[in-house]
Amino acid sequence: MSNSNSKSLIWELDAQDGKARAGTIRTRRSVIETPIFMPVGTQGAVKGIRFEWLENEIDARIILGNTYHLFLRPGLEAMRRFGGLHRFTTWERAFLTDSGGFQVFSLTDLRKLTEDGVEFRSHLDGSKHFISPEVSMEAQAALGSEIVMVFDECPPGDASHETTKKSLELTARWALRSRERFDALQADDMDTGFTPVPLEPQLSGRQALFGIIQGAGHYDLRSESLYRTVEIGFDGYAIGGLSVGEEKSVMYGVLDHIAHRMPADAPRYLMGVGTPEDLLEGVAAGVDMFDCVIPTRNGRTGSAFTSLGKINIRNAKFTLSDEPLDPNCECSVCKRYSVGYLRHLYQAGEMTSATLVSHHNVAYFITLMRRARQAIIDERFDGFKKQELELMKSNGL
Amino acid sequence: MSNSNSKSLIWELDAQDGKARAGTIRTRRSVIETPIFMPVGTQGAVKGIRFEWLENEIDARIILGNTYHLFLRPGLEAMRRFGGLHRFTTWERAFLTDSGGFQVFSLTDLRKLTEDGVEFRSHLDGSKHFISPEVSMEAQAALGSEIVMVFDECPPGDASHETTKKSLELTARWALRSRERFDALQADDMDTGFTPVPLEPQLSGRQALFGIIQGAGHYDLRSESLYRTVEIGFDGYAIGGLSVGEEKSVMYGVLDHIAHRMPADAPRYLMGVGTPEDLLEGVAAGVDMFDCVIPTRNGRTGSAFTSLGKINIRNAKFTLSDEPLDPNCECSVCKRYSVGYLRHLYQAGEMTSATLVSHHNVAYFITLMRRARQAIIDERFDGFKKQELELMKSNGL
Repeated sequence: MSNSNSKSLIWELDAQDGKARAGTIRTRRSVIETPIFMPVGTQGAVKGIRFEWLENEIDARIILGNTYHLFLRPGLEAMRRFGGLHRFTTWERAFLTDSGGFQVFSLTDLRKLTEDGVEFRSHLDGSKHFISPEVSMEAQAALGSEIVMVFDECPPGDASHETTKKSLELTARWALRSRERFDALQADDMDTGFTPVPLEPQLSGRQALFGIIQGAGHYDLRSESLYRTVEIGFDGYAIGGLSVGEEKSVMYGVLDHIAHRMPADAPRYLMGVGTPEDLLEGVAAGVDMFDCVIPTRNGRTGSAFTSLGKINIRNAKFTLSDEPLDPNCECSVCKRYSVGYLRHLYQAGEMTSATLVSHHNVAYFITLMRRARQAIIDERFDGFKKQELELMKSNGL
Repeated sequence: MSNSNSKSLIWELDAQDGKARAGTIRTRRSVIETPIFMPVGTQGAVKGIRFEWLENEIDARIILGNTYHLFLRPGLEAMRRFGGLHRFTTWERAFLTDSGGFQVFSLTDLRKLTEDGVEFRSHLDGSKHFISPEVSMEAQAALGSEIVMVFDECPPGDASHETTKKSLELTARWALRSRERFDALQADDMDTGFTPVPLEPQLSGRQALFGIIQGAGHYDLRSESLYRTVEIGFDGYAIGGLSVGEEKSVMYGVLDHIAHRMPADAPRYLMGVGTPEDLLEGVAAGVDMFDCVIPTRNGRTGSAFTSLGKINIRNAKFTLSDEPLDPNCECSVCKRYSVGYLRHLYQAGEMTSATLVSHHNVAYFITLMRRARQAIIDERFDGFKKQELELMKSNGL
């Protein structure tokens, strides 16, 4: 690390109940109580939800930014000119940025993979670009996020043992290159988000770097990937390559196998997952951090997650309903608006339907994790999880 | 009126400067200081702007609902079941509803006009409907708005003298029928918005009814329409049939001719108009109330109204701009977000671009009218208007 006297991130374990953990992550820009759900702000905005709501009501402490999208638009030069993602977007709490790898590997027909990195064509205009561990670290330094992710290769969920093994070898080499370039960038003060006076005096004000564990559905390879990632050493560790098309049972199996084996003295992050059920299973397995687009993506199609299960406001049975989306939710949408009204807005093509349902969904995910945290502290997480899962199945509305 | 001891609306003249007036309208649900701009909530929502912003920051006191749209969807039966537009939408301040006439007459190919009313086909599903003065009054009673508009015929802006005269004769007959049906509905307690305890003790808690002056660009017919409308007697008077395709000079000519001749002891409302320039001209001519979709419609295409003129955030020159949309605006969008960021959101297809620019535009229109009011009270409206119009032309950003 560029500054050996201080850390870029502090992890504290506040309570443990079975494998489930309640912790506190201190970054230079915000204190994050875990387990935490991180809303996704792909292009520098959480779709449909103004930052004011995320700050003042929902109280999100950290959101995601997607390096691939921001790399292409507005681009790194613009990002540097604006002074990084915080100044550009005005979001002053923490950002976690992904490496861009996941999106690039989704462009199956548009990419060329070598040891050095990936050549790809932009999904926007077909222009040619190159991304590598080094480029990804440079991009994330230009973004100035609090948590940087290493550049990894993400194999398909059903990849064979051989393919997966080859892929995780590459991921390990890239992780080391990521680490080295990241450290050099920190030493060179290339991080636009550097904070001379961080929230906690023990913090360095610099970026933190997380490693990523791959290995698809193969437990031995997951273990190997974990070992090789920890060997390099990171501020936190993520589980990648889940929820990419595999069966739920495979995902839960991998979670059970690997999460509690990850270093106890660092945050554990399950990337891109998932439904409320997935989050509860992840917490049970020992995961601390989650992100997913589904609260906002589903919000745009009128699909709401509630304590009584998933509902879709397009359903005609809600036409005359003056009930809230979720009778157990305290968010500003549930306290004010009826499903009947939200349904009308959806039918009428009013974007306010998307913004309101997205708002509720994100509030619901964040609140669910806040309640899980309290249950862990109270040593009643198992019962809490069971009860929530049963309620979700009741489909009560 | 159904209740002769009290009024459904109180108009007070606070100040006059030339023909420009500053007044106060007291409705059963909100106090409206004029001149006022009323945001349009066509389908029960102001497009892209949550009510919370309109209440807590922008402080809109009255918004519009469109009877045609709400008549078709969710429909009057749903509206009655929900207990009217206020309960349905949760907007507890005043609503003004139009009669549905304007929209129906826009369906040129889908309507059949008789003395009795208009048969038309829904633009949504082609289903056949009938609307008349009586039906419009029943619809607006079901909506429970504070201000109801008579059902009128709106001829094209370039209609001949003969066509216009015939049209306004029909409008006058329909105005009388509107008045009669409206009074009967009030007596029968069919208004879902009835307020037993209105904001002011002198108020009846019932709906108010506004008459509409037609006559296209013909001054003599405008005068005749005014005379015949006042003869029936209403709580307020509107100028209809402007900004429907005629030249700006025709509109300003009609305004100059008719606005100050309208009853001094009632609010004057210019329907569906217009740009910031139009609003200032309207105020100068003696108009008190305005509504228009352009702040939100333009907001969705990235077009912002500012004190320095109209700008479009799509313009490449704003790519790296960290300036606000309007350096003279105090709205939450201008105080926080840069044009460069808003432009990025627009380019990235983020709906937050639409919501933020719409928010600013509505705030700008409402603030412009608030400042016009102060200028009238200070007896400096002429200079204020001149200065604002010059600034708008400067295109300073």
